[in-house]
Amino acid sequence: MTAPYELIYYTGVPGRGEHVRLILEEAGAAYEDTQFLSFDKARENVTHWLGAGGHGNPHYFAPPLFKHGDLVISQTPNILLYLGPKLGLAGSQKDDVYRVNALALTALDGLSNEVHDSHHPIAVMLPHEDQKEESRRRSQYWIQNRLPSHLNYWQKVLKSDKGSPGPWLLGETFTYADLVLFQCLDGTMYAFPKAMKQARESGKYDKVFKLWEDVKTRPNIATYLGSGRRQKYQDWGIYRHYPDNDVVSE
Amino acid sequence: MTAPYELIYYTGVPGRGEHVRLILEEAGAAYEDTQFLSFDKARENVTHWLGAGGHGNPHYFAPPLFKHGDLVISQTPNILLYLGPKLGLAGSQKDDVYRVNALALTALDGLSNEVHDSHHPIAVMLPHEDQKEESRRRSQYWIQNRLPSHLNYWQKVLKSDKGSPGPWLLGETFTYADLVLFQCLDGTMYAFPKAMKQARESGKYDKVFKLWEDVKTRPNIATYLGSGRRQKYQDWGIYRHYPDNDVVSE
Repeated sequence: MTAPYELIYYTGVPGRGEHVRLILEEAGAAYEDTQFLSFDKARENVTHWLGAGGHGNPHYFAPPLFKHGDLVISQTPNILLYLGPKLGLAGSQKDDVYRVNALALTALDGLSNEVHDSHHPIAVMLPHEDQKEESRRRSQYWIQNRLPSHLNYWQKVLKSDKGSPGPWLLGETFTYADLVLFQCLDGTMYAFPKAMKQARESGKYDKVFKLWEDVKTRPNIATYLGSGRRQKYQDWGIYRHYPDNDVVSE
Repeated sequence: MTAPYELIYYTGVPGRGEHVRLILEEAGAAYEDTQFLSFDKARENVTHWLGAGGHGNPHYFAPPLFKHGDLVISQTPNILLYLGPKLGLAGSQKDDVYRVNALALTALDGLSNEVHDSHHPIAVMLPHEDQKEESRRRSQYWIQNRLPSHLNYWQKVLKSDKGSPGPWLLGETFTYADLVLFQCLDGTMYAFPKAMKQARESGKYDKVFKLWEDVKTRPNIATYLGSGRRQKYQDWGIYRHYPDNDVVSE
C-alpha cells in the first residue's frame, strides 16, 4: 500500500497550488486536495501542517504544502521536482531534471511572481487601493519591458534546435515545465488580457501561444479544466485583473 | 578525469552567484569562476552560455549559470540542488534533498528577492532615483512587517525539536540551506544595518544570528571570506544600502 499524495493549500483561487494539481492531473494520479474543505478549514489545515510535521520535517513558511506519507515539503517548484520523476514528467535524458527545474523556476519567477508583484508593489499586507498608483505604474513598465522579454525568451527556447524537434520546451519530450509555463501564461492572460492579446496577435510569440493551446487540449488537462476541480481566478489571488493596469505596449 | 565545475556569472558584486561559491568553498571543491574575467568579458561569457549550450541544454533567461561537462543549468536554487548531494551538503535522511531545497527557496524568496525588490519596486530597468519614494515606502513596510515575519520563521525552524538537537536548520546535520540563509542574512545586514542591528539586539532571533556567526567561522568559509575571492557588496547588486531606506521598526 502506498501513501496518498496530499496537496495542502487554501481554497477559492487556483493559486500556486494549481501547478501541483496540473502535474497530478496530467499524469492521471489520484490525490487528496484540501480545496474541497471550507475556506476556514482549509486555512486551519495549512496552519497545522506549516508547523513541523515530525519525522525530520522542518517548519515551513507558506503553502502550498505537499504530504506523501511521513514527508511534508513546501515550495511549488520543489513539490513539482519531487513529483516530476515519479510521474514520468521530468524528461528522459540524464540530468534533465535540472533542466526542467531551471525552466519551471524561470516561468514562476517571470510570469507568476512578477505578475503578482504588479498588484502589490509596495507591500503585500497593504490593500491594493493604498498602492493603486504604484501598481498602475509598475504594470505599465512590466507590460512594456518585462512581458516582451519573457515571451521572447520562451519563444527562443521553443524555436531552438534541441536535438529533437517538437513543440515542447525540451523538444519532443513533454515535461512539467510545459505545464508550469501553460499555467503562467493562462494566469497572465487573466491579469493582462489586452497586453496578452496584443502579444498574441503580433505573431512574434507564435510558439509560446501554441504551447498554451497544446497543453490546454491534452486529454487529461482538457478534462480537468472542464471539471469543477479547476477553480476560477479571482481578484485576491496571484493573478488579478485590475482594469487600470490592463494596458497595451506602445 | 572528471569535468571541472564552472560558475558562469557577472563580476563585481557577490550577487546570486555567491550562493554557488559558498557551497563549493565549504566543500573545498575546486571550481572555475568567471569573476576573474574583466567586467566585459564576464558579461560576454554569460551571454554566450545563456544561448543553448547544445547537448540538450535549453536557452536560459539569466545567470548564474553552471557548467559541468556537457550539462549547463541556470537558477541559483537549482545549481545548489545539483551540487548539494554531490558535495554531501543536502542532508542525510531519505528525501532530505527536498527539505533542504524548500528551506533554500524560502530564504531566497524572503531575504534575497524581497530585499532586492525594495530598491526597485516599480521596475528593474528604471534607475533607483526614479522610484526613490516608492523604494523608501516599500522598505519601511518591509522592515516593519516582513523582516520580523521572516526572522521569526527561521527562529522557529532553529528552535524546533527535529529529532536531532543542533544549531542547523535540519538539526545536527549541516546543509547548504544553512549557507544560503547565512548569505541572505549577511546581505540583508548590508542593506538594512539599522533594522538588522535592532533585530539582533532584541534577542528574539538569537538562534538566527547565531547561525550567521557559526557559518562565518566554519574553517573553509572563514578562509574564503578573508580571501580576495569574496567580493564586496556594492550599490548595484541585489543588496544595496540606501540611507533613506535604512530605518528601524517602530
